[in-house]
Amino acid sequence: MRFLRYSAEGTTALGIIEGETVAEISGDLFGEWQRTGRSHALGEVRIEVPLVPPTFYAAGLNYVAHVKEGAAKRGEAPKLPPNADIGYRAVNALTAHDTDVVIPGDAPEQVHYEGELVAIIGKAARNVSEADALSHVFGYTIGNDVSERTWQRGDRTFFRAKNTDTWKPMGPWIETELDLAAAMTVVRVNGTETIRFPTNEMLFSIAQFISRTSRYCTLVPGDVLWMGTDGTSPNLKHGDVVEIDITGLGTLRNRFVRAAG
Amino acid sequence: MRFLRYSAEGTTALGIIEGETVAEISGDLFGEWQRTGRSHALGEVRIEVPLVPPTFYAAGLNYVAHVKEGAAKRGEAPKLPPNADIGYRAVNALTAHDTDVVIPGDAPEQVHYEGELVAIIGKAARNVSEADALSHVFGYTIGNDVSERTWQRGDRTFFRAKNTDTWKPMGPWIETELDLAAAMTVVRVNGTETIRFPTNEMLFSIAQFISRTSRYCTLVPGDVLWMGTDGTSPNLKHGDVVEIDITGLGTLRNRFVRAAG
Repeated sequence: MRFLRYSAEGTTALGIIEGETVAEISGDLFGEWQRTGRSHALGEVRIEVPLVPPTFYAAGLNYVAHVKEGAAKRGEAPKLPPNADIGYRAVNALTAHDTDVVIPGDAPEQVHYEGELVAIIGKAARNVSEADALSHVFGYTIGNDVSERTWQRGDRTFFRAKNTDTWKPMGPWIETELDLAAAMTVVRVNGTETIRFPTNEMLFSIAQFISRTSRYCTLVPGDVLWMGTDGTSPNLKHGDVVEIDITGLGTLRNRFVRAAG
Repeated sequence: MRFLRYSAEGTTALGIIEGETVAEISGDLFGEWQRTGRSHALGEVRIEVPLVPPTFYAAGLNYVAHVKEGAAKRGEAPKLPPNADIGYRAVNALTAHDTDVVIPGDAPEQVHYEGELVAIIGKAARNVSEADALSHVFGYTIGNDVSERTWQRGDRTFFRAKNTDTWKPMGPWIETELDLAAAMTVVRVNGTETIRFPTNEMLFSIAQFISRTSRYCTLVPGDVLWMGTDGTSPNLKHGDVVEIDITGLGTLRNRFVRAAG
């Protein structure tokens, strides 16, 4: 089932996608909800960020080639993380499918995409086993963990390297069914494929991250886990359009624009 | 003016503290609000976390002695941050005044307090100057940035070193007036003073953090900035009670308990 958050006729609502139609629902996405009877053509609504998480988790270094290629570019030996230690991003940076990613005028040139699978928690998780972890996942969407590498290396934190406003596109919708073993992540820049990798070839699985995190930190409905990315990105420039496909989830598309000054 | 979030008679509400009375209000803390006419004795309500921020910012290393003493303990040269690069904490870890901080059974021994001033944003801030920054602050409270140093050094992220459930006591209330230049931060463990420092002797000021962050990241009403701490802490043990005073703000008190196992 596909859930969409959208705006139409001046209001923002949740809906279910059924073919080319959005059927509005009301209630709790993770609990009881009902159809309102209203509907819209999918092509005529504005797609919004699917949700704003209480806590925005990010796996970080979670694909081998990404770690190795990043280290090689910096002239360092690759260091694979020994444990599924989760990191964080910030909600100010979220932006929807088909909106612009704005590069500040003073940002250096190494603005990169990172195409990521996003898992959305639907049921509170505290001290859950790996075997039980996925039963706490409500569904999946796509994220672009936009990063500027000069800031990422030089600053004390990732505040602007990864959390600049509009640098966390997420969407377009939430899909509750995913055949993860069969999924491919594909990224295109201006229509040309730049990377393709099996979505599931992670260092640490979604279940491992949820289980380890939940030993210390309670995950709650609406929390998101961005699962990391593989490979590298070209430096993105004003006007570039980045599309991220994940099999069965759809396409997240955003244009990059550089602000003046 | 002092705003309190509290529970009484089965409901949670916002109120204004007037002497020993809490006058309930309804509406938007940062906008229009009204008195409801209901009131309670301050001593008879349960104090709740003052708010749950959309983004939970933390200054990190922001007092000279804290940086130097931490480095000396690790046998390293102290490195003062060159810029006001803000970090993050996570809302799962928030807990109220007079609640227990729970140390997981597998946590190492170096569980430390960090007594911190907390600034609460009241008005959206994007690209604000240092001169204008404090006009975006609604008020202040106290935070305890509880940290386990072995995890802090050894893990890839701070997920459990700083964001374990209950490790971010915040409160007891929001005070809109603060004479920062005159304020002292004082920490006591089991009634004995362990540290005392001028709250305002920060490496980077609240205005500097807000101005620099807001060049890239929009701060919104309810966001909190924890301003860092000075000095060091003894290793806290089961049953220890930590009190943090900041002049004019009151006292944040929490008992530390170690979970079995």
